[in-house]
Amino acid sequence: MAQLQRIAIAPSQIQANIITLSKEQQHYLGRVLRLGSGHRFIAMDGQGKWWLAELQGEKAHILETLTPATELPIAITLMVALPKGNGFDEIVRYSTELGVSCIAPVLSDRTLLNPSPQKLERWRRIATEAAEQSERSLVPTILSPLAFSTAITTNTATQRYICQARGHHQHLHQAIQSHTSEILIATGPEGGWTQTEIQQAIALGFQPVSLGHRILRAVTAPIVALTLIAAACEF
Amino acid sequence: MAQLQRIAIAPSQIQANIITLSKEQQHYLGRVLRLGSGHRFIAMDGQGKWWLAELQGEKAHILETLTPATELPIAITLMVALPKGNGFDEIVRYSTELGVSCIAPVLSDRTLLNPSPQKLERWRRIATEAAEQSERSLVPTILSPLAFSTAITTNTATQRYICQARGHHQHLHQAIQSHTSEILIATGPEGGWTQTEIQQAIALGFQPVSLGHRILRAVTAPIVALTLIAAACEF
Repeated sequence: MAQLQRIAIAPSQIQANIITLSKEQQHYLGRVLRLGSGHRFIAMDGQGKWWLAELQGEKAHILETLTPATELPIAITLMVALPKGNGFDEIVRYSTELGVSCIAPVLSDRTLLNPSPQKLERWRRIATEAAEQSERSLVPTILSPLAFSTAITTNTATQRYICQARGHHQHLHQAIQSHTSEILIATGPEGGWTQTEIQQAIALGFQPVSLGHRILRAVTAPIVALTLIAAACEF
Repeated sequence: MAQLQRIAIAPSQIQANIITLSKEQQHYLGRVLRLGSGHRFIAMDGQGKWWLAELQGEKAHILETLTPATELPIAITLMVALPKGNGFDEIVRYSTELGVSCIAPVLSDRTLLNPSPQKLERWRRIATEAAEQSERSLVPTILSPLAFSTAITTNTATQRYICQARGHHQHLHQAIQSHTSEILIATGPEGGWTQTEIQQAIALGFQPVSLGHRILRAVTAPIVALTLIAAACEF
């Protein structure tokens, strides 16, 4: 299936095994991807469903429902303090590629930024693109930014980790309990979490962990954390 | 030591425990970092040596030789096919942060780019900056680009891996033999290595490995590979 082109569709576009294509999708399939009637492609609904479809003019026929194996066996939520500048774009792109299920941006004591609603739309667009490129069947959910102290009380994953540089904590690599269905991992802003934030998280059951001996940028820490969790639970 | 400022110096600037500072270094210490005579900072030679130094006008006195613990216990060479655009800048920055010792850019069958000598200087500058930021004591070596077929015959690391997407290889996470002093890991360009390249590498003793079920971008694969190797050998 790797050679077939993929497009994202809304579930509402499907009726009785026929996909009614929007003008943009017709243009994309016909002009950009140069597919004609009878050509096949993969339609994804962004919720984990994939279909093998055959183009027929302005519609497409569903030939088969596919079960792709690109999703991780557990759901990972990345709680991440908003970094400076456009760093969050990079975090969304890499995290999606690495298999994250949900991204929860948070405002921490050392975060100055309060992003506009346009930003949220932009991040969701980046996540959709990255999910297509990395051949995922699920587009991660991106939550609206919340204050850190609120966000940590609302998540109920059984395994919850908070990453801290310069601490003497166990390495995430060793700490991961991958026999679970849900993991939350929190990574900090430039300058790190404050001691108060770490204490708040610990009081709510978060385990503080290290990501190694080097000081990572705010955009690098989530990539490292997700790589280690994905590798631990995928094999 | 974490609070002290760091600057890179050339070993030739040291004589009998005195560092003779260049005009730029004096400006940086005095004007940018606002240090005066009697203030302390860390001097790094980019080869793994750090010194605690005290500023005295246009010179600095070495007070102590430091042994930082930010370096990995093994030397990792990243052989990486040059990606399109400025992707290599990103690879150099992330790889340095993650502890790489040597970066060997290669021209593969699917690489069109033949970079200018200015590029090499630019990458070395990025590596120096990233080493300082991540508090490493060693600035990774960046080799001049070579053809893939030449590069794979010149490296002699005992553990050599080549990453391939869409294969059915063992995951790097499982394959790593971290009881070694040197590891070479090769990651491909957009579109991956050709089958011929993979076969050439295998013939020379490279072990083909997977980085997981999702399709990673050419800039993401080295980050994932280095994260897994660093975690395996650091703990």
